[in-house]
Amino acid sequence: MNNFVFQNPTKLIMGAGMIARLSKEIPHDAKVLITFGGGSVKKNGVYKQVIDALQGYEYYEFWGIESNPTVETLREAIALGKEKNVDFVLAVGGGSVLDGSKLISAAILSDKDAWDLVLDGHRISETLPLGTVLTLPATGSEMNNGAVISRKDTAEKYGFYSNYPKFSILDPEVTFTLPTYQIACGIADTFVHVVEQYLTTPGQSRVMDRWAEGILLTLIEIAPQIKANQKDYKLMSDFMLSATMALNGFISMGVTQDWATHMIGHEITALVGLTHGHTLAIILPGTMQVLRDQKADKLVQYAERVWDIHHGTIDQRIDKAIQKTEDFFRSLGLTTRLSEEKIGMDIIEEIKKRFEQRKAAFGEQENVTGDVAYEILKTVV
Amino acid sequence: MNNFVFQNPTKLIMGAGMIARLSKEIPHDAKVLITFGGGSVKKNGVYKQVIDALQGYEYYEFWGIESNPTVETLREAIALGKEKNVDFVLAVGGGSVLDGSKLISAAILSDKDAWDLVLDGHRISETLPLGTVLTLPATGSEMNNGAVISRKDTAEKYGFYSNYPKFSILDPEVTFTLPTYQIACGIADTFVHVVEQYLTTPGQSRVMDRWAEGILLTLIEIAPQIKANQKDYKLMSDFMLSATMALNGFISMGVTQDWATHMIGHEITALVGLTHGHTLAIILPGTMQVLRDQKADKLVQYAERVWDIHHGTIDQRIDKAIQKTEDFFRSLGLTTRLSEEKIGMDIIEEIKKRFEQRKAAFGEQENVTGDVAYEILKTVV
Repeated sequence: MNNFVFQNPTKLIMGAGMIARLSKEIPHDAKVLITFGGGSVKKNGVYKQVIDALQGYEYYEFWGIESNPTVETLREAIALGKEKNVDFVLAVGGGSVLDGSKLISAAILSDKDAWDLVLDGHRISETLPLGTVLTLPATGSEMNNGAVISRKDTAEKYGFYSNYPKFSILDPEVTFTLPTYQIACGIADTFVHVVEQYLTTPGQSRVMDRWAEGILLTLIEIAPQIKANQKDYKLMSDFMLSATMALNGFISMGVTQDWATHMIGHEITALVGLTHGHTLAIILPGTMQVLRDQKADKLVQYAERVWDIHHGTIDQRIDKAIQKTEDFFRSLGLTTRLSEEKIGMDIIEEIKKRFEQRKAAFGEQENVTGDVAYEILKTVV
Repeated sequence: MNNFVFQNPTKLIMGAGMIARLSKEIPHDAKVLITFGGGSVKKNGVYKQVIDALQGYEYYEFWGIESNPTVETLREAIALGKEKNVDFVLAVGGGSVLDGSKLISAAILSDKDAWDLVLDGHRISETLPLGTVLTLPATGSEMNNGAVISRKDTAEKYGFYSNYPKFSILDPEVTFTLPTYQIACGIADTFVHVVEQYLTTPGQSRVMDRWAEGILLTLIEIAPQIKANQKDYKLMSDFMLSATMALNGFISMGVTQDWATHMIGHEITALVGLTHGHTLAIILPGTMQVLRDQKADKLVQYAERVWDIHHGTIDQRIDKAIQKTEDFFRSLGLTTRLSEEKIGMDIIEEIKKRFEQRKAAFGEQENVTGDVAYEILKTVV
């Protein structure tokens, strides 16, 4: 175990009907900026529940935060928040709305341009309080202090760190009507979040290993059942809790982390717009393949504990585990090869170039450079 | 999954050498009451590390918080804290020192007698800030808001809820010199904390089940190795993290809980002074036996996932799992029968009487009354 400091102050409020608690969690004299995505919350009843709970509050609505939220859109929300002098931000949506709202809650208090805040590289500690109502389990943004923001005009996508949400409300019922593709991408995203914190050096922490494996086993168990019945409250609770626990620091205490798959995935999304979770489903088997020697011991543990693979040579077990991983993503209905998404060598070359320009060296051994990213992507052509 | 609200704001600071961070975590103008147990921290170097870190601070030392901290002793610490006008409490010790210090940090701000605060039944929200340096992994007090306090003159022992520690520092090296018996009791305590939150109704939360099982599997794996080498940093890190994660709310989100074993155990400790973790090792197999029908489905899951028992009738599997549980406690070096500790029918009768007087009804189905407690204790005579 490496030395670590862990603290996660977010209040997690989970269950059917819990959106009504908003009036308990937001001060009654707050001036609230409510941020939304494209409008699905008007169809699934979430919007009505939120507005009902906020009767008597002074609030302003900002609509239109897109998937892979762009600084161009967020600047409009920031301007509205400044104009109305809001002192609380309530994000209602999926990871994109939440991520975007982290930047909004920071930039309203700042004189700097929002993109400069993203690029600054320091954790932003001065922000308006942020609450969230999550509608799509996937990114874990509801219980962490990270966010990823895109810039349209340069096709760039970067992460930054800010404050944790004060509270997040998770009602599994709001997931009943999500599109199948979003569920699939959410499961893939959750799965890969866990793997990024797990598939590194073995023997660092038995508890963290077991907890990571516990989320993976849960996802593998529930994914086919969710496909059969997306309106099963228990299943969707398990999915929703898995997604939150996969990226809130609970499985990364004292262990090294990878994140190379994510860094490559961000570039694909920035360049061609493919949904984040889907990019990860394509890249992860490639990362496992290219880094199989470095990660051999942990891959064998992963094979055994997650996929019940106990026989064969080390190489055979690893082969099987990688195949099982790809099969799992395909079982969600996702493609797992770049060519299936018409992503060609030009994009692979461009990602290599971007990694080189940035002197990128990702992964737990900081050896995923442009060359290695190129190898990984070539493996999943 | 049941609806739930989860929030745990404690900052967990873990690793070798981390005690030096005290000066980062406690404001430099704080007037600190440092609370200690019996003096082992002077032998293992913890005291020196704490005092070195607090150079320049105004601080006062209170020594002598005993195992199963008594309100009689704590009143002295409270009086010292009031006299010196302290505004920060730093607990340095095991669960008893930490639990006692939760009462101290509350009572210094109150005009009420400390025992009245314990009996009051409400969560105490106004307290001095409390930091902890943990020396004995067991109770989880370092990352939760509960405490158990004893009263000498009436041989009573009750819990209360207060605030979470602001921070807790866990250096696995401080456990290298703990007495074997304390390690054994700490492992048993951790094990039973998990079981109290796990062995109830199945199918409530897949993630919580996996995480609970993950801690149990970890304990079973490390216990014999710790016996062989208590100075193995990795092993003791795994133990220490397990103990904290076993009772900080991380494995109880949205699930019912039992706690009958603990409530019976508290009475034994209050009446005859047997160490808390040891009482649990004796009682738990009895609880499993007496409530085996009610808990059958979860006992079978426990048998399969924790003890690798896959064959036989339901009853045979449950028998084996209960036997494995008792064997595990014995492997730690603990006795598992009341008679081995010279605890006789008079104590069993007294516990039954106390449960009846209090109209006690513990367990996830609130059916562990005096009669059931009597049955449980008779099973482990």
